[in-house]
Amino acid sequence: MKLYYWPKTRAFRALWMLEELRAPYELAFVNIRAGDQNEPAFCRINPMSKLPALDDDGVTVAESGAVLLYLADKFPDSKLGVPHGEPLRGRFLQWLFFTGACLEPAMAERMTGAPGNTVSFGWGDLGRVEHAVEGALKDGPWLVGERFTAADILVASTLQIAYMAKLIEPGGVLSDYVDRAVAREGHERAAAIDHREAERLALKPHAGTVSVKV
Amino acid sequence: MKLYYWPKTRAFRALWMLEELRAPYELAFVNIRAGDQNEPAFCRINPMSKLPALDDDGVTVAESGAVLLYLADKFPDSKLGVPHGEPLRGRFLQWLFFTGACLEPAMAERMTGAPGNTVSFGWGDLGRVEHAVEGALKDGPWLVGERFTAADILVASTLQIAYMAKLIEPGGVLSDYVDRAVAREGHERAAAIDHREAERLALKPHAGTVSVKV
Repeated sequence: MKLYYWPKTRAFRALWMLEELRAPYELAFVNIRAGDQNEPAFCRINPMSKLPALDDDGVTVAESGAVLLYLADKFPDSKLGVPHGEPLRGRFLQWLFFTGACLEPAMAERMTGAPGNTVSFGWGDLGRVEHAVEGALKDGPWLVGERFTAADILVASTLQIAYMAKLIEPGGVLSDYVDRAVAREGHERAAAIDHREAERLALKPHAGTVSVKV
Repeated sequence: MKLYYWPKTRAFRALWMLEELRAPYELAFVNIRAGDQNEPAFCRINPMSKLPALDDDGVTVAESGAVLLYLADKFPDSKLGVPHGEPLRGRFLQWLFFTGACLEPAMAERMTGAPGNTVSFGWGDLGRVEHAVEGALKDGPWLVGERFTAADILVASTLQIAYMAKLIEPGGVLSDYVDRAVAREGHERAAAIDHREAERLALKPHAGTVSVKV
């Protein structure tokens, strides 16, 4: 498997997932500072010119939630997903879709001061989004209950950005949840790789897309 | 199966999917004008207080993309999805996630005149979103090629809203695509039900949630 990646981007979510899976993968660097995301070869994989994207032996997938779901379904033994047929499958899918469709647009509204429209827009507003996650964690410690899943990778890593950008007040149920998630070994390994690659690429930026065995 | 529904809302997407499937289902009316979406029983299913949501014999799921994916995976013989293991599974998931994570936030920015941030936000902007769908349809007639899928239900029904709200200029590849999608019998049946229920509920609004056999 090949992860299209650049450090300190949303590709981190997929990197974290791959490190949780401990599956073999390569990093293919897409230098978004140099505009490599607009190269025709990458646009064929993701016409949105965004990271992450994945190539699994010719099966390509982009959009963070889709990448994580694809990986969760591919590795059922990892228990990082909920297979179809199990009672929690619906809830698992719901939280995967929630991040891109609710959490991120609501964060963007808060960031830009956009007027929004709580009635018309699918995400309501950031207050509703926070409340929804807090409610789901009552039966925690994770979004679908006892088991940490790819949905937690997506929601927790995005909430972490909300804290770093000071869009949400720290403290309480959500902060504890993010702390719990990023304390995992899989996150530590991914964060170390992300940091290492950021340092390396600052010194020697790649032109084009280069595969590196991890 | 029970679809939590109110006419002239995003629940239409799931209604269209169910009519394409020709699977037996009930409509459970959630009067969003009366605030029924905030009732504790419904919030347990979707803490975002939004439609659609689905209850499949106790397996609950909300978020439009998640509902459609759940149904596509439940009825593989319908060919409205792409099962895991097939080469187009990645692309199918990608377009399902795209609608909530890219198309809708970009439409909202256009609608409110929000400043946006093409670099930072996952959806880029509405121009990029339109371009992405147009590119995908080059190998059409549908998003994953020859086969009409749940991803087309989601993208086409959302683009139709963009046309009605005059957020996108009519004409060209995207207009043709939407016309092709809404010409399907499944869409006609769903639109007739949506229209019928809108008329009926305008005369006799339901209080609470009532199941009606379709």
